[in-house]
Amino acid sequence: MQFLSDNAASVHPAVWQAMQDADAPDAPYDGDAWSQRLDGAFADLFGRDCAVLWVATGTAANCLALAAMVPPHGGVICHREAHVETDEGGAPGFYTHGAKLILAEGEGAKLTPESIASVLDAIRPGVHQVQASAVTVTQASEYGRCYSAAEMSEIAAFATAHGLRLHVDGARFANAVAFLGCDPWEACAGADTLSFGFVKNGGLGAEALVFFEPALAQVARLQRKRAGHLQSKGRFLAAQILAMLKGDLWLANARSANAGARELASAAGARLRHPVEANELFLTCTADERAALRAQGFTFYDWGPHAARLITAWNSNPAHIEALARAIAAL
Amino acid sequence: MQFLSDNAASVHPAVWQAMQDADAPDAPYDGDAWSQRLDGAFADLFGRDCAVLWVATGTAANCLALAAMVPPHGGVICHREAHVETDEGGAPGFYTHGAKLILAEGEGAKLTPESIASVLDAIRPGVHQVQASAVTVTQASEYGRCYSAAEMSEIAAFATAHGLRLHVDGARFANAVAFLGCDPWEACAGADTLSFGFVKNGGLGAEALVFFEPALAQVARLQRKRAGHLQSKGRFLAAQILAMLKGDLWLANARSANAGARELASAAGARLRHPVEANELFLTCTADERAALRAQGFTFYDWGPHAARLITAWNSNPAHIEALARAIAAL
Amino acid sequence: MQFLSDNAASVHPAVWQAMQDADAPDAPYDGDAWSQRLDGAFADLFGRDCAVLWVATGTAANCLALAAMVPPHGGVICHREAHVETDEGGAPGFYTHGAKLILAEGEGAKLTPESIASVLDAIRPGVHQVQASAVTVTQASEYGRCYSAAEMSEIAAFATAHGLRLHVDGARFANAVAFLGCDPWEACAGADTLSFGFVKNGGLGAEALVFFEPALAQVARLQRKRAGHLQSKGRFLAAQILAMLKGDLWLANARSANAGARELASAAGARLRHPVEANELFLTCTADERAALRAQGFTFYDWGPHAARLITAWNSNPAHIEALARAIAAL
Amino acid sequence: MQFLSDNAASVHPAVWQAMQDADAPDAPYDGDAWSQRLDGAFADLFGRDCAVLWVATGTAANCLALAAMVPPHGGVICHREAHVETDEGGAPGFYTHGAKLILAEGEGAKLTPESIASVLDAIRPGVHQVQASAVTVTQASEYGRCYSAAEMSEIAAFATAHGLRLHVDGARFANAVAFLGCDPWEACAGADTLSFGFVKNGGLGAEALVFFEPALAQVARLQRKRAGHLQSKGRFLAAQILAMLKGDLWLANARSANAGARELASAAGARLRHPVEANELFLTCTADERAALRAQGFTFYDWGPHAARLITAWNSNPAHIEALARAIAAL
Repeated sequence: MQFLSDNAASVHPAVWQAMQDADAPDAPYDGDAWSQRLDGAFADLFGRDCAVLWVATGTAANCLALAAMVPPHGGVICHREAHVETDEGGAPGFYTHGAKLILAEGEGAKLTPESIASVLDAIRPGVHQVQASAVTVTQASEYGRCYSAAEMSEIAAFATAHGLRLHVDGARFANAVAFLGCDPWEACAGADTLSFGFVKNGGLGAEALVFFEPALAQVARLQRKRAGHLQSKGRFLAAQILAMLKGDLWLANARSANAGARELASAAGARLRHPVEANELFLTCTADERAALRAQGFTFYDWGPHAARLITAWNSNPAHIEALARAIAAL
Repeated sequence: MQFLSDNAASVHPAVWQAMQDADAPDAPYDGDAWSQRLDGAFADLFGRDCAVLWVATGTAANCLALAAMVPPHGGVICHREAHVETDEGGAPGFYTHGAKLILAEGEGAKLTPESIASVLDAIRPGVHQVQASAVTVTQASEYGRCYSAAEMSEIAAFATAHGLRLHVDGARFANAVAFLGCDPWEACAGADTLSFGFVKNGGLGAEALVFFEPALAQVARLQRKRAGHLQSKGRFLAAQILAMLKGDLWLANARSANAGARELASAAGARLRHPVEANELFLTCTADERAALRAQGFTFYDWGPHAARLITAWNSNPAHIEALARAIAAL
Repeated sequence: MQFLSDNAASVHPAVWQAMQDADAPDAPYDGDAWSQRLDGAFADLFGRDCAVLWVATGTAANCLALAAMVPPHGGVICHREAHVETDEGGAPGFYTHGAKLILAEGEGAKLTPESIASVLDAIRPGVHQVQASAVTVTQASEYGRCYSAAEMSEIAAFATAHGLRLHVDGARFANAVAFLGCDPWEACAGADTLSFGFVKNGGLGAEALVFFEPALAQVARLQRKRAGHLQSKGRFLAAQILAMLKGDLWLANARSANAGARELASAAGARLRHPVEANELFLTCTADERAALRAQGFTFYDWGPHAARLITAWNSNPAHIEALARAIAAL
Repeated sequence: MQFLSDNAASVHPAVWQAMQDADAPDAPYDGDAWSQRLDGAFADLFGRDCAVLWVATGTAANCLALAAMVPPHGGVICHREAHVETDEGGAPGFYTHGAKLILAEGEGAKLTPESIASVLDAIRPGVHQVQASAVTVTQASEYGRCYSAAEMSEIAAFATAHGLRLHVDGARFANAVAFLGCDPWEACAGADTLSFGFVKNGGLGAEALVFFEPALAQVARLQRKRAGHLQSKGRFLAAQILAMLKGDLWLANARSANAGARELASAAGARLRHPVEANELFLTCTADERAALRAQGFTFYDWGPHAARLITAWNSNPAHIEALARAIAAL
């Protein structure tokens, strides 16, 4: 009974089907019919012009986005616990050729205009300190917290006012939209770029890097090739993404994952360290309690010495969730 | 009737099957059972210890290999027409942080100890000129030419004698082994690293980066993550590769592609600009002749103003090959 | 009456003289007689083999040292307020090709084995988090605090035990040795590399990058050229450094600067925010008090809203120091 | 009797004097009065707005210029024998983060619109091949050949027409202007950036990086710091450059060096491998003949097995030149 992560879950049958439907020779790289449909499909979803590139991983999506927005001598403001800072093996430094991640604070791994301002204010203008060029926020955050439409638009307004580009790391963007119940654009309004994740939500190996500022996409297109991410059979990546968009499968899958998390949250009660909004739970529990859960067949990560992290997926088995909810309640 | 490239051909049914067999949750990244079997599978194939990493593209494989072998201030000797020089969008410069490709000559896009020596001799020792750290050769070459076991071992001996690491770009390594009829190791004997291609040979999106010098693999492992190439559902890449190795499917597919090329070569006769060894043909033909072929439904690339490039694939339709052979003979 | 910084002070007459003595044609770059004497001169000073490179700036010295010790995918532990983190315009990221500065805490901008351990312990092994390869400490620190011989050797022992290289940023190494009254080696014992500063201590534009681990020097030699820091008339840099070493001028100059700072410290009393060990003072004082000092002709930097930073130099005018001491006492 | 290079010659007395005149504390870095005068001084010289940065070496000047003009995924067209390609230890790759030097041919190490066009034409548009962003030419070239005002403006027009930035490596710009007898601007008309060399012409350690396109200068200003080239006592670099400009000392020095070369050229007659325009001579002569010259006390570099390279400097001793001319004539 797996609650380790959504990142290794099974692939949705519709994704498999779409990949196999794409298995006829077509133009290589992104010249094929599937890849060519991406811009339009996301334009429909977001209600505005988009330039969209597929890539295989969220790390590549995030870092190509940052590299398109920040010069090598620049900096990107992110939360101290953002994935780009803590879990991408230095990829942002690689893709941006050494630009600096400038760390900010914020509850629930979320930034606010105030927290961004406080790091900005500490930077002396000039050449001796790295100047910030961009901000990146995570929707939903590392703690499964979501930026409301209002919060997102405040951050976007702040960024614009300070000449900063805005990136949204949406590895779990679907879960955020499912929670917020808003229009997809509202969940990232004002962003220049969005890493729209599908792998954690039923995909196999395809994420969409969405540019709302099309001029940036051309740089990313060149750098995607330069990073060895331009797969020759790119149609299989595009087909995955299109299958996820079709009939809003992405949203249905995310709702399913979120519902599982909510069910667990109800059982966890006061153990919750963060409000559960997306599909991640952080529970206060002792080493003995974690051992007890594992003894019942549940797998999950420790989160420091006093907590556990549990993640539900698009296809988490309802029986497993129910069993885990019972087990948590019984701790 | 497609002869543009093997790089966008269909996926072999056994590869599809293996991917679907892998569609159960397992450890993410390369912690899964499939990924863990790669080292052993290639050790069996090559008869020696190997450390093997999957990556999605040949460009990533080549460049991770080079980055593990050459410091940023170093250089890599390659043929003037090598893929790393001409078709990877500057990826070698990106992965190696600016190391220099040092260009050498050689018939059929193949290097020789003499051609390597001639560029080495021209480098003044010291800090003013970039010093060579490695050599990369392509097996089969950009013109479909193969290094015999003897040629490969001469190059390896030369490299060792001059303190140079050796990489083999084997985007079409299978086609080379199929032509040479040798043991796989003989086709790359002495190499430190091999990019073993599967995408052009029936795979979907997985290449094997093979390290015969295991110490280098650890660097590549870190840099694969840093380059955003560590897919979370890596089991699907490993499964593709294992399916290709099983029962020597890689070799059967390559033999099939090579056979098609040989049939076309017989028809082409004196038009051939290079001996046909793997699955690529370069034919002298006028613009009118090319137009005539295209009018009959054959697709292929021009190769400058006076030639065409034709590539067969593992699944090239025998009827199409026969038709093209007739059409070429009739030009 | 200048107390802004020692970094723009006048050049010592002995340095001028040595430069002019070097003004005859000699071999370019570092092939000249002066440059060739550096290794020996520092070997004498430190009582052990050294490989020494001149460079024009402390930033170049620090970053060439780091680049020789850490791979692009690695990390360097430094204090949150270290110069490499706060004042080098992203140069560490440039020279190391994106390696990460990993920030640690410590009183007086000094690291301890405990503070290093606390950041090390937080890094998960594997490829997802940047692994530390080196530590850099500043002697004297950004707050003018010095590592005692015992503290230095504890840090070195810790670094060795954890497989970390050790760099000492010695922009004010002379001031530290003058304060500690120890043998120069004791002030950096166990370091692999030392940036030994002269520009702030009477030099014009030359720092010594000292390698106690000679194998590292060869990489730095190549990268110094690659960074455009190999001046063709390098003899003028070597001559400056040799002049500073001659008769321990470096130590005399540092003692003079430190003495000035001590005199001011006596006057400052409880206003001191840090013990004064080298030639820097941080004084609690209001905006009005700072305005009052400036009105009397003293120049210095604000240090946030409630403090001032004052720096003495090798040639600070005793009358100015006395005047400032009086002015501070009268606040 | 030294004819090895002008790069290690003595420093002109006026340069020494200017440096010593600058030896009073002033603002650090480039905030001092001398540095602040540079833009105006070059604006006067070139008759147009300039933004000017001092740096210590020609390699740094060239590479900061290129880095301001070309993205990491771009390319710079240069001559196969240009200094950036052959003698800067890979610095262009370092500063540009891996941009590609694209090599073109041309007599006398000079490019022409035709030679630039021939490499441009060979680049397929798209993401697979590195696209050119800039051209760099050397005035005077590695063989001491100068671009006439007409040649320079043809190249500039070609660059503009093809969307390429233009850089002039003027390590010996003074020698070129002295030969051409033209207005300084005519010798680099249309360039976006110029590395104006002084070190080979009587300076100690200062070159001027001139931006005729001021927007580029701001990037270079940030990257100069990032490369560790922002010296804290920058006034000493600015003072050198101002001294060289004063009363056109730069031109007088270059005329002197050129005159020496012309005298030797007259003696060399048919041995000359290139017309002598600046201060470099390339003479066909056997190993025995070179030994004979060396036996008479002349020092110079071999240029391959059948030639010698001789360079005169601003202060080459007239008696030495006369003696060498006689010796050459007597070979």
